[in-house]
Amino acid sequence: MNTTDLIGYFSAFLTTLAFVPQAHHSWKTRDLSGVSLPMYAMFSLGVLGWLIYGVMINSWPIIVANSITLVLACVVLYLKVTHRD
Amino acid sequence: MNTTDLIGYFSAFLTTLAFVPQAHHSWKTRDLSGVSLPMYAMFSLGVLGWLIYGVMINSWPIIVANSITLVLACVVLYLKVTHRD
Repeated sequence: MNTTDLIGYFSAFLTTLAFVPQAHHSWKTRDLSGVSLPMYAMFSLGVLGWLIYGVMINSWPIIVANSITLVLACVVLYLKVTHRD
Repeated sequence: MNTTDLIGYFSAFLTTLAFVPQAHHSWKTRDLSGVSLPMYAMFSLGVLGWLIYGVMINSWPIIVANSITLVLACVVLYLKVTHRD
């Protein structure tokens, strides 16, 4: 694997798994007051779009990364929607 | 432009601009208590990686989208780091 690919995979790994600590934090604390609802609504829809795009171009890295991110972003979105300040 | 490309651009648009309401919300309210520091640390580093990847493969869509996301994610990260509950 060349350096360029390595940077790509490393970046994909980080931007995908970044949502693990956020989903965990939101789930555990139920503190959603500083989390933006429009952000997670737009982001979840966008990630769903990426997943559909991945299926259409038959790209497993896009499908796998966005499936994980979609679940995590939807957890935060769900907690935010059901959250009462 | 075919349907596949259209879905790709639409998804890129959403996942990039999703950080506008979050950065705006965090900046305006200074309420960062529900925002995960490890998330924004990992995410900002990952987006920086995507930006470097975009420069290396000379892809303007990747460069533009990730430059915008990097600025917005770094605003949230900065506010979180300097935030006192």
